[in-house]
Amino acid sequence: MEVLNKAAAKCILWVFFSCLHVIALRSQLFSRLHRSPDRDDVLISYKTFYFDQKIDHFGFIEDGTFRQRYLIADKHWKQPGGPILFYTGNEGDITWFCNNTGFMWETAEKLDAMLVFAEHRYYGDSLPFGQESYNDSKHLNYLTSEQALADFAVLIQNLKTTLPGAQHSPVIAVGGSYGGMLSAWLRMKYPHIVVGALASSAPIWQFTGLVPCGDFYKVVTQDFARSGHNCDSNIRKSWKAIKNVSSTVSGLQWLSEEFSLCSPLKNKNNIFSFKRWLQETWVNLAMVDYPYEANFLQPLPPWPIQVVCKYLALDSTVSDYQLLHGVSKAVKVYYNYTGSSSCLNTSQTATGSLGFLGWYYQACTEMVMPMCTDGVHDMFEFEEWNFQAFSDECNSIFGVRPRSEWVGTVYGGKDIASHSNIIFSNGGLDPWSAGGVSYNITDSLVSIMIPEGAHHLDLRYSNDHDPPSVKAARSLEVIYFQEWIRQSKKKCQLHRPSSP
Amino acid sequence: MEVLNKAAAKCILWVFFSCLHVIALRSQLFSRLHRSPDRDDVLISYKTFYFDQKIDHFGFIEDGTFRQRYLIADKHWKQPGGPILFYTGNEGDITWFCNNTGFMWETAEKLDAMLVFAEHRYYGDSLPFGQESYNDSKHLNYLTSEQALADFAVLIQNLKTTLPGAQHSPVIAVGGSYGGMLSAWLRMKYPHIVVGALASSAPIWQFTGLVPCGDFYKVVTQDFARSGHNCDSNIRKSWKAIKNVSSTVSGLQWLSEEFSLCSPLKNKNNIFSFKRWLQETWVNLAMVDYPYEANFLQPLPPWPIQVVCKYLALDSTVSDYQLLHGVSKAVKVYYNYTGSSSCLNTSQTATGSLGFLGWYYQACTEMVMPMCTDGVHDMFEFEEWNFQAFSDECNSIFGVRPRSEWVGTVYGGKDIASHSNIIFSNGGLDPWSAGGVSYNITDSLVSIMIPEGAHHLDLRYSNDHDPPSVKAARSLEVIYFQEWIRQSKKKCQLHRPSSP
Repeated sequence: MEVLNKAAAKCILWVFFSCLHVIALRSQLFSRLHRSPDRDDVLISYKTFYFDQKIDHFGFIEDGTFRQRYLIADKHWKQPGGPILFYTGNEGDITWFCNNTGFMWETAEKLDAMLVFAEHRYYGDSLPFGQESYNDSKHLNYLTSEQALADFAVLIQNLKTTLPGAQHSPVIAVGGSYGGMLSAWLRMKYPHIVVGALASSAPIWQFTGLVPCGDFYKVVTQDFARSGHNCDSNIRKSWKAIKNVSSTVSGLQWLSEEFSLCSPLKNKNNIFSFKRWLQETWVNLAMVDYPYEANFLQPLPPWPIQVVCKYLALDSTVSDYQLLHGVSKAVKVYYNYTGSSSCLNTSQTATGSLGFLGWYYQACTEMVMPMCTDGVHDMFEFEEWNFQAFSDECNSIFGVRPRSEWVGTVYGGKDIASHSNIIFSNGGLDPWSAGGVSYNITDSLVSIMIPEGAHHLDLRYSNDHDPPSVKAARSLEVIYFQEWIRQSKKKCQLHRPSSP
Repeated sequence: MEVLNKAAAKCILWVFFSCLHVIALRSQLFSRLHRSPDRDDVLISYKTFYFDQKIDHFGFIEDGTFRQRYLIADKHWKQPGGPILFYTGNEGDITWFCNNTGFMWETAEKLDAMLVFAEHRYYGDSLPFGQESYNDSKHLNYLTSEQALADFAVLIQNLKTTLPGAQHSPVIAVGGSYGGMLSAWLRMKYPHIVVGALASSAPIWQFTGLVPCGDFYKVVTQDFARSGHNCDSNIRKSWKAIKNVSSTVSGLQWLSEEFSLCSPLKNKNNIFSFKRWLQETWVNLAMVDYPYEANFLQPLPPWPIQVVCKYLALDSTVSDYQLLHGVSKAVKVYYNYTGSSSCLNTSQTATGSLGFLGWYYQACTEMVMPMCTDGVHDMFEFEEWNFQAFSDECNSIFGVRPRSEWVGTVYGGKDIASHSNIIFSNGGLDPWSAGGVSYNITDSLVSIMIPEGAHHLDLRYSNDHDPPSVKAARSLEVIYFQEWIRQSKKKCQLHRPSSP
């Protein structure tokens, strides 16, 4: 069994970023979006608590517990019975999600609601085996979505029985990205515990056999195609240009200098990593293509892809060197908008954060999200989805193999019509929308599309530059929340006297 | 860790039957009802298959598989698309359930349905670790209802993709007793996999905090009260009579001879076990109080409690010895109806069967069913529910402790109204009806009461002596099945073209 100490973890991160021929893992890092808030003017105040959770909800020989962190903000909560908005934490420190989900803070007052942000096991402070949690696959064995959902269910039941005034409080699950998937799944699997769910930018269909593996990168490509003249086609051409230029020693040196790389390119492996890094940069830009200045993965201007594309509006007659000069200027919008970077580091595409290794494990077990590119309908080099190679990589790193069919079996794939009270919101610019629910399944399993939205824009603080579509989305989401709360109160009144 | 070899298992059975001060475990053996069929005239024909299931659906370090047994009868199946009635096996050999669920065999032709009977892991031939499956709590760790449900879900998905003509076949879950609980839970947790469920005599509310712990024994008492003059009151008096008579050596000897016991009573412990054995006998009679001659736990006459009560129709002036003579004649109806028993064995109340130890483990982990008696509203001696004592016993035997709240959290307790398409049928004579769903929760979560029915009478073969209520129940169940099948076909037609 592989032992994953800190040094090894660093090595693995490098492997993932630099060498891995498996496109899916790298592209699944959609949690990195959550960082410190953009709005310093909004006061966030919460209390931090810890709850003793069973390490294993589904077996009895492991009877230990760990301390799950959760945050409570009850300033606007009207008790008894006021609603609870419950953030189903994803793969990272819960305080990030708390700080970056302005929509919940802005909605609390409207609904007289309490806010709860619950941390996902194995992330942030909620480590089942403390510092040993990532030691090996034995310790990682309880890092699954089912265990996380059970944590949320148990925690909510505990809050409702122990917080005075919360006994009849309807609970609404809210989450973005993987956290949104968990919100939707929590409503599906524990409808007695949450009355509804807002699953924002939640790619619950980005799994085997549900959507074409190429759709993710098609959305990325469309974002660039619509943001400037020849923008996507010049990125498509850039891969060949890199190959041409890098075929000589002087070309390698030119590339290294042109891109201000911290570590000069020296060989084919470096070029492979360099192209991976570029591809990931374009993906990240698509995810954070927000209409205002923001600082997630990197500090960025409003509509960053438009800014990037200005440097790529080159006609078809330019030389490889001219084209790559444009690419260099473009990526520096992403990596050096503030002008503070002295060189670019191709081993990372975002400033460091927690949660990578945990998500890699999840991707290597349950969360298998096939990705592929064809170079025709997208602007990337051809790369097919190779499950076997992926599985072998996972096995070599973690000593476990992914089960690609399981998520569909346990969560229903596209056949989810018998559930109710879930909003699936998606941004048209967000590549993860390709795996999201983009049409109304029933009257109460509804899709809200935000054409001008990137990754879960609706969960962010309101902003003067918000497009009308996200304002409308947030209004509609609150209307659904109110309807679910109304249903819940009506049900309480109806059912209590008639129960035997 | 306790090692449970065969000798130890025998000892534990004895402990459970003879010594355990925990009433619940003993009373939870509701699976023993299933035996060889009563109807030799009905030809049952099926094929046996095995499916490779993951030992652990909820973790990845244990990646092994085991062979789950399932039976298929497709004589009446109309393909493509004909429905599948899927028996969710409970704690025993699946062939018993197959042979004893005549209702499914009789319904197959009406619905052009295929029958599938799937064995529950750790029972019959479906042993995750072969002969080592019961060795210790490490091997028993995967014996949970969640794992069993996942087995059923995975198996059904496999059948639908591999059996030609089954792709669009609606699947209806059917089960009795614990198998009925699994049917209901399968529909709740995997509604994309089964379109509906018939949960017959399924005490899904016989859990902590959901129904009063004394209701089970109240039903037993009512069965005796309505079946003969002074019948319940004389049983209530018998405990004191036993105490009085057994206080002398000659009294002990008299009791032993009067009851034709194989092992004479010698001390207080023996008396305790003797009373347990009597109590269990009355419970078993309540479960199998069928209107016709049947052979489940024992060969019995029609309406066996009426026959038993003839020997207990004594007035209040009888002596302790006269009363216990009546009790002796009464229990011999149960143990010696055929006249073939030379003596009565107080260490068992039914002829041997598989599955006991597995169910004890389940009762000691998830399936904690509180039971109590007060001697006032029931005909038994006072005994409160003592969770701590129960937990300590479980820990000493299996090395695990029960989690009494978990079933409510995971399956919703009484708050299940958001689910759909489940029939809960219950027999008015069946003590397990106390923990069943006895009222309509919604239009599609319906209760069918069979006042003259014992334990899942509706699942048995039809019989000339069936009361009208069970005939009506079966007819209604088939009507619901037809409705679910119709809904499913309509949904297929509606949804397919509009999906993107």
